[in-house]
Amino acid sequence: MAIVVQLVARPILPEDWKLVPDGSEGALVTFAGHVRGTESGNAITALEYEAYAPMAEQELRRIAGECLAKHGAGRLTVVHRTGVVPVGESAVVVAVTSAHRKAALACMDAFLDRLKQDVPIWKIRALPGDERGAGRACPD
Amino acid sequence: MAIVVQLVARPILPEDWKLVPDGSEGALVTFAGHVRGTESGNAITALEYEAYAPMAEQELRRIAGECLAKHGAGRLTVVHRTGVVPVGESAVVVAVTSAHRKAALACMDAFLDRLKQDVPIWKIRALPGDERGAGRACPD
Repeated sequence: MAIVVQLVARPILPEDWKLVPDGSEGALVTFAGHVRGTESGNAITALEYEAYAPMAEQELRRIAGECLAKHGAGRLTVVHRTGVVPVGESAVVVAVTSAHRKAALACMDAFLDRLKQDVPIWKIRALPGDERGAGRACPD
Repeated sequence: MAIVVQLVARPILPEDWKLVPDGSEGALVTFAGHVRGTESGNAITALEYEAYAPMAEQELRRIAGECLAKHGAGRLTVVHRTGVVPVGESAVVVAVTSAHRKAALACMDAFLDRLKQDVPIWKIRALPGDERGAGRACPD
């Protein structure tokens, strides 16, 4: 059982979370959570995330272990970004391996629920978009 | 709602299935199904897959549409490999986007169940491994 936890204050890269299944792992499930262009109905350009890093990493590791054990999955890697994350970019990426697909999917579902509930990482600010002006070369 | 279906008789590449979420899609879930080193308890080196291609593609497209609609997900891409797939390589990769994570995970779970049940793609042969001799430079 291997767990890798990382908080990064820069764009998340494929090599941050890449898990290569070994010959006993038939399933690899990944989840990427992207910042959407609206927050509470308002257009935004980015979200800003803040983490209480030591506790967040400890909690992510604890939750990962519990979810892997409960669902019989193999390995889990999670990378969460902090700071300003523009719309369309990943705020979090999680990868789970297991022998069979059901265990990996159930582990992922449970882990994402717990991540939202229990881990001290917060959206502290939504940077507003200018709906009328955005992308216009010649404002009228 | 966009669906991309592909059967390939070569290794699956990232560009075959890559889905880039637009600003309204907060979730991207991917599944890769890898060939495991044992089949029915025996060591193997590869599995060989065969598809009835026209019907397989049609079924994949139909099932994808049903699963996206049922679970309110956005887009789905599926790539299935045919021919000999060595242990550790992907036989199938699926990617699903949606506004929120629960819809994408539920759509993925349902789609993989239906893929196994309803789509005319079969494992026709397991290529046996030589457990004693494998990897030995100087057999005794």
